[in-house]
Amino acid sequence: MKPTPTPPPDPLDLLAFGAHPDDIEFGCGGVVALETQAGRSAHFIVCSRGEAASHGTPEQRAEEAARGATLLGASLEFLELDGDGRLEARPAHALRLAAALRHWRPRLVLAPTPAEDQHPDHAALGKLVRDAARLARYGGVADLKDRPPHAVAHVLFYAVTPSAEPAGVPPLLVDVSPPKVLEAWLAAMKAHASQLQTRNYPALQLSRANVFGARCGTTAAQALFPNDPLVLDSLAGLGRAARHF
Amino acid sequence: MKPTPTPPPDPLDLLAFGAHPDDIEFGCGGVVALETQAGRSAHFIVCSRGEAASHGTPEQRAEEAARGATLLGASLEFLELDGDGRLEARPAHALRLAAALRHWRPRLVLAPTPAEDQHPDHAALGKLVRDAARLARYGGVADLKDRPPHAVAHVLFYAVTPSAEPAGVPPLLVDVSPPKVLEAWLAAMKAHASQLQTRNYPALQLSRANVFGARCGTTAAQALFPNDPLVLDSLAGLGRAARHF
Amino acid sequence: MKPTPTPPPDPLDLLAFGAHPDDIEFGCGGVVALETQAGRSAHFIVCSRGEAASHGTPEQRAEEAARGATLLGASLEFLELDGDGRLEARPAHALRLAAALRHWRPRLVLAPTPAEDQHPDHAALGKLVRDAARLARYGGVADLKDRPPHAVAHVLFYAVTPSAEPAGVPPLLVDVSPPKVLEAWLAAMKAHASQLQTRNYPALQLSRANVFGARCGTTAAQALFPNDPLVLDSLAGLGRAARHF
Amino acid sequence: MKPTPTPPPDPLDLLAFGAHPDDIEFGCGGVVALETQAGRSAHFIVCSRGEAASHGTPEQRAEEAARGATLLGASLEFLELDGDGRLEARPAHALRLAAALRHWRPRLVLAPTPAEDQHPDHAALGKLVRDAARLARYGGVADLKDRPPHAVAHVLFYAVTPSAEPAGVPPLLVDVSPPKVLEAWLAAMKAHASQLQTRNYPALQLSRANVFGARCGTTAAQALFPNDPLVLDSLAGLGRAARHF
Amino acid sequence: MKPTPTPPPDPLDLLAFGAHPDDIEFGCGGVVALETQAGRSAHFIVCSRGEAASHGTPEQRAEEAARGATLLGASLEFLELDGDGRLEARPAHALRLAAALRHWRPRLVLAPTPAEDQHPDHAALGKLVRDAARLARYGGVADLKDRPPHAVAHVLFYAVTPSAEPAGVPPLLVDVSPPKVLEAWLAAMKAHASQLQTRNYPALQLSRANVFGARCGTTAAQALFPNDPLVLDSLAGLGRAARHF
Amino acid sequence: MKPTPTPPPDPLDLLAFGAHPDDIEFGCGGVVALETQAGRSAHFIVCSRGEAASHGTPEQRAEEAARGATLLGASLEFLELDGDGRLEARPAHALRLAAALRHWRPRLVLAPTPAEDQHPDHAALGKLVRDAARLARYGGVADLKDRPPHAVAHVLFYAVTPSAEPAGVPPLLVDVSPPKVLEAWLAAMKAHASQLQTRNYPALQLSRANVFGARCGTTAAQALFPNDPLVLDSLAGLGRAARHF
Repeated sequence: MKPTPTPPPDPLDLLAFGAHPDDIEFGCGGVVALETQAGRSAHFIVCSRGEAASHGTPEQRAEEAARGATLLGASLEFLELDGDGRLEARPAHALRLAAALRHWRPRLVLAPTPAEDQHPDHAALGKLVRDAARLARYGGVADLKDRPPHAVAHVLFYAVTPSAEPAGVPPLLVDVSPPKVLEAWLAAMKAHASQLQTRNYPALQLSRANVFGARCGTTAAQALFPNDPLVLDSLAGLGRAARHF
Repeated sequence: MKPTPTPPPDPLDLLAFGAHPDDIEFGCGGVVALETQAGRSAHFIVCSRGEAASHGTPEQRAEEAARGATLLGASLEFLELDGDGRLEARPAHALRLAAALRHWRPRLVLAPTPAEDQHPDHAALGKLVRDAARLARYGGVADLKDRPPHAVAHVLFYAVTPSAEPAGVPPLLVDVSPPKVLEAWLAAMKAHASQLQTRNYPALQLSRANVFGARCGTTAAQALFPNDPLVLDSLAGLGRAARHF
Repeated sequence: MKPTPTPPPDPLDLLAFGAHPDDIEFGCGGVVALETQAGRSAHFIVCSRGEAASHGTPEQRAEEAARGATLLGASLEFLELDGDGRLEARPAHALRLAAALRHWRPRLVLAPTPAEDQHPDHAALGKLVRDAARLARYGGVADLKDRPPHAVAHVLFYAVTPSAEPAGVPPLLVDVSPPKVLEAWLAAMKAHASQLQTRNYPALQLSRANVFGARCGTTAAQALFPNDPLVLDSLAGLGRAARHF
Repeated sequence: MKPTPTPPPDPLDLLAFGAHPDDIEFGCGGVVALETQAGRSAHFIVCSRGEAASHGTPEQRAEEAARGATLLGASLEFLELDGDGRLEARPAHALRLAAALRHWRPRLVLAPTPAEDQHPDHAALGKLVRDAARLARYGGVADLKDRPPHAVAHVLFYAVTPSAEPAGVPPLLVDVSPPKVLEAWLAAMKAHASQLQTRNYPALQLSRANVFGARCGTTAAQALFPNDPLVLDSLAGLGRAARHF
Repeated sequence: MKPTPTPPPDPLDLLAFGAHPDDIEFGCGGVVALETQAGRSAHFIVCSRGEAASHGTPEQRAEEAARGATLLGASLEFLELDGDGRLEARPAHALRLAAALRHWRPRLVLAPTPAEDQHPDHAALGKLVRDAARLARYGGVADLKDRPPHAVAHVLFYAVTPSAEPAGVPPLLVDVSPPKVLEAWLAAMKAHASQLQTRNYPALQLSRANVFGARCGTTAAQALFPNDPLVLDSLAGLGRAARHF
Repeated sequence: MKPTPTPPPDPLDLLAFGAHPDDIEFGCGGVVALETQAGRSAHFIVCSRGEAASHGTPEQRAEEAARGATLLGASLEFLELDGDGRLEARPAHALRLAAALRHWRPRLVLAPTPAEDQHPDHAALGKLVRDAARLARYGGVADLKDRPPHAVAHVLFYAVTPSAEPAGVPPLLVDVSPPKVLEAWLAAMKAHASQLQTRNYPALQLSRANVFGARCGTTAAQALFPNDPLVLDSLAGLGRAARHF
C-alpha cells in the first residue's frame, strides 16, 4: 500500500485521521491550529469524501477539506477504505492505517473516539486507529515489512459531537483561546460551506469550546481523550487542573 | 485552628496527607522522593498516630513516621481529627484541612483515593481533602478568614493498596526508577518497622511499582489519580503514553 | 419544624431546592421559567445565604435570590441547615426536607445532582433531597406525623456546572428555547449581580444550553437527571429523541 | 433491496426487529399489544427463521411467528441476513435495515439491546438497528437513494432475557397490566410452542414483568432502553416515577 | 457495649444484619433457610423496630421478626442505633457492629447492599457492616479491646428490592429451590403480616427468585453480592455458571 | 472442520485458548499448572504461530509453545484463523471454535478477556470464545450438526497484561503459590525464549502474581474473570475472600 509515493523528510508532529472531510476541523481543529501555529507539523488522512451526506458533492467536499487543512496549517490526503457510511473496523484496514503510521512516523495521533453513540464511521475509525497504533509497533507484521516499526507517543481521541465524548473518562482540556488560533479554527470550520446550510455548526463548536474553556478558566478549550495512561518523569510538568466551573 | 504557629516562608511544592503514619510512604513514597530529590519542597500531614493497628504503640509509630518523612526529604506534622478507625468525612474536618491548605499554600496535594474498597479512614480522608481543596478557594468562608484563599494546582490521589485504585479511571504513571529515588523510598517504607512483622509490605509495594513500571517501559512506577481534568496549553509537553505491557 | 406557618391552599407543581442563593437560577432556571410561564406553580427552598462566597454579603445575596425567584415566577424561602460550605447529608436534615415536602406537596422536585465532582454542599443537598423524598412517603415517621405522607411524582436533578452532570446517565433534555423563557432565565441569572464580577456565568450557562439544544434540534435546552425510572402507560407520549448533534 | 414490493399507504407507528422468530414476542410483546390495542400500527421484521435452535423446523417457526404477530396485531416479514447464529454487525446489513426504515417510515423502532451478555445475534441486531437509524437520515447514501430520508422518533431497545438488560442504564417501564394486553401477550408467547418444550418461558417472562411492575405499582411492566436522550417540551407530560419496590 | 451478655459457645456460621424487622426475610430469607436446614447456625441483628413504617407498631413488628427468625432457624437480637429512617453511617456505629462481629465470630456475614437507590437506612447499614468487617480485624482498636480480632470469611450483600442490586456487578446466584427451603422462606415472609396489607411482597420476592432461578436452570434463586473478590485454591470447586436465560 | 481426527476418550477438564503461542503461559499458566498437577486434563488451542511478532520465526514459536504446553501438563494444537495481527471476531470463526468445544467437551474454558485495551487479536479471541460457548449449546446449528451440543460449566477470561483486566469487574483470585506450581509456570514462561530478548516477562508476571497474592494472603495468585455469574447450591463452598491488601 502506498498512501504517498515518497517518504516525508522528517517525522511528523501530528497525524490526524477523519472519517469524513469535516471531522477533523469540527472535532479538533482548534488543537491543530494551536500546534501548527507553534511551528509543529501536521498531516490529515481523511477516509471518505463524505459522499453519503445530505449536502455537497464528493468533489466539493474534497475541495473544502483541502481548504480546511490549509487554513489549519496541515497537509491532506484521502485514503479510500469502505466509503462513507460503510466503514468497517476490519484488521485489513487497521493494517493499512498502521502502514500510514509507519510512513509518516508521527509523534501524536488524533482520531475520533470509538464511542458507540455517534456516526458509525467515526466509531469504526477510532477503533481502527487504536489497533493500528499497536500493529505499527510489532516488528514481524508481514504486510508492514517494507517500513520499520514505529511507536507513536500518544493516540488522542477527539469527539466530533458531545454524544461522542466517552462517559466517565476525564478529558484532557487543551486551551485554544489565543485569538489567532480561534480565528484559524473558525475559518477552517467555515471552509466546509456545503455542510452549513441547515445548521450553524461552527457556532455550536464554539459554544462547546466555551463550556470546556469555562472549566479551565479560559474562553475556549477542546477536549481530547488519551487512549493510554500518561507517563510522567516528574510532577513539575503537570500544569494546572480544570476546576473553575 | 493552628496547625503550625508560623507561616512558612515560601509556598510549598507538595503537601501529602495520610490517615495513618505509614500511608504516604507506602502509597506514594517513591513520588515524594522523586520530587524532593529534584529540589522541590514537601510536607506531610498525618491524621492519626495509628493507634488502632495490631502492632506498634502510638509513640513508636510517630517516631517511625518522623523517620520516614526525613528519609523522603519532607517535614511532618500530626493533625488530630477523630482518631484511627474513626475518621469521618465531616464538613468541620474539611474546613480544618482547608485551613491547612491556606497555611501551606502547596502547588500539589497528595491524598488517599476516596474509593470505598479500602480502610474506611483512607476513603474518608480522600473525600475530606477533595472538599478542602474546593473550600480553600472560596473567599467568604468564615472559618478560614484569617488566611487568604488558595487554589492548589492539582489534588492527586494515591492508592495505598491495589483495591483502592479507582476502577475505570486511567492513572498517571510516575516513573520512580532512578536508583536513588528507589533507595530512599525503600528506606522510608522500612522505617515503619512495627508494621512489617507479619508481612513484607515494602516488597509488595515494589512488586506493584514493578508492574506499573512495566506499563511504561521502566522498572518502577507509582500511579496517581488526578481529581480534576488536566489542562494543557500545548501538546508539546504531553510526554509519552503507557503501553509497553 | 415550621418552614412556613400556614399550609398552601393547593398542592404545588414544582418545588426547587438550592444550596446557595443562585444554584436554582443557574442550574435549572430555564426549566422553571418554562413551567411557570405555562401556568404552573413553583416554590424555591434555599439552604444558605451564600455566606462563604468570595463576593456579596448574605443580605445582598438574599435580595438577589428574591429577585431571581420573582423573575422566574416562583416564591422563595430560606431554610437554615448547616450554613454555606458546611452542609452535611445527615438523616436529621433529610427529615426536615421531608417535612417541607409534606407541607408543600409538590408534584415535581428539582435538586442539585448528588455527583461528587462539584461544590460539596450541592452533592450533600442532592443526597438529602433524594432521601427526603423517600421518607416523606413513609407513614410512621415520628418527626413527620403532623402532616400526611406525600409521594412526589419525580425527583429531577439539575447540574449547576458541567462537572456535576452524572457520567453515563442519559439526561432528559428540556427545550427552553421559547424567547420569553430565555429572557426570563437570563434576567434571573443576572439578578445575582454580586456573583458576576469575575466571570460571565449567564453567558456560560447559555453556551451550555446551546450545546444541549444542539442535541435536540433547538437553540437552547437544559438537562435534568431523573432519580427514578420513568413509567409510561403508552408509547404515545414519548415525544422525540435527542440526536441531531 | 426490496423488503416488500409496494410502499405502505401510511407511516407506521411501530416497527419491531427480531433476530429469531420469538424474540419480539418474548422481549416486548406486552408493549406491542398495548400499542396495537390502542389503535396504533405495528410491523415485525424477523432476521432468521431460527434454524439453529434445538427445537422446531424453520417452517414451523415461521408459522409460529406469523401467529404471534397476528395475536399482537402486527404484520410480519422475514429479512434474510446471515442466518441464525451467524448474524454479523456489518455496514452492508445496516444499510439494508436503513432501507427498510425508509420504506416503513416508523415513528418508533424496537430492537434487541446491543448488550454483549446474550445470544450474539441479538447483540449484532441491536447494533445494526442503532446504526441503521442514523444512516436512514443521511440524504446522500447511495444505496438508499430510491427512498427519501427518514428520522425515527426513537429507537427503543428491549431485552429478551435479564442478562441482556444494559447495566447502569435506567429503563423506561411500560405498564402492560391491562387484562386484554396481558392476555394477548401471553397468547403470542404461547404461539411459539416449539420453543416451550423444555422450559415455560411465558411464565418466566410474566415473572419478569411482575417484578418490573412492582417497581411502578402495577402488576406487570416491560422495560425498554432508549438509544438517545428524551426531549421534553414541558415537564407536564413526565408522568410518574418508578419507586414502589 | 454488650449486644449479649454471654459469648456464644461456638463461632457462628452466618450473621445477618437488617435495618428493619423484615429486611433479612425479604432480601435473603431463602439463603438463610438453605443454610440452617443444612445444619449451619444463624443469628440476626436487626437495627430498628421499623417504627417509621406506615403500618404496624414497634411491638408487633418485633414479634413478627422473632417469628420470622424462628421459621428460618435463626436467633435474633435488636441493636438500637439511630432509629428507623435515621440511620447514619458513622464510625461509632461501625465500631459497635465490629464489636458484635467479634462477639459472634461468624464465618459469613449478610447485610443490605450499600447501593444508593433504596431506603437510606439500608444503604447506611451496608456501609456500616462493610467498614465493621474491616475494623473487627485490626488489633489495636481501643473500643474493641475486650474481644480478640476476628476476620470474617465473606461479607455478602443482599438486595431487599431490585433497585438495590448494584449495577454492573455480577451476582452470586444461590439456588433456593428445594421445597422445604422455599416453604420456610415463604412462611418467614408471611410472618411480617403488618407489612402485607397493601401489597403481596412474598409473591413479588418469589417472582424475583423465579427470574434469578431462570438464569441458573432452577425454579428459584436469590442473588448475593460479595464485598471482596473470591479466592480459590483450585478450579475444582467452581460449580456451574448462570446462563440458561 | 476437523481440529483433530479422533475424538478424545474422555471429556476434558480444561480447554485454554490463546491468540499467540505464549498467551496462555503468560496469562494463566500458573492456573493451568495448578490444575494439571492435581490430576486434571488440559488442552491448548493456539490461533496463530505469532508470525507478526518482532522476534522469533513461526517454527521457533511453535516449538516454544509445544514445550510450554508440555511443562504445564497440557496437549496443544494450532488452529489457523486469520493469522497474527489479523484476527477478526466473525461468526464463522465462532462456529469453528464452537465445533472445537463440542469435540473436546471441556468442563472449563480459559480465554483472553475481550477488553479493548490490549492486542486486538486478544480481544477478538475473547469475544469469539464467549460466543462459541453459546453456539456450542444450540442444538440446531447446521455447521455443528456432526457433534452433539455441549455446555461448558464456565468460560473464565485471563488477562495477558494488566491493561487487559476488565475495569470494575471483581476477579476470581486463584492461589498459585505451591512451589511446584510456581516452578512449572516459570519454566513454561521461560520456554518462550524468543520473546524474552528485550524484556523479562516472566519476572513481570511473577510481580503481578505477587500483587494479586498479596490480596489473598499468599505469595502468588492469578486473576480470572468469569463470563457468567456463579451459581451456588450452598454457601458452604464459598471459601475465603480477598482482603489482606
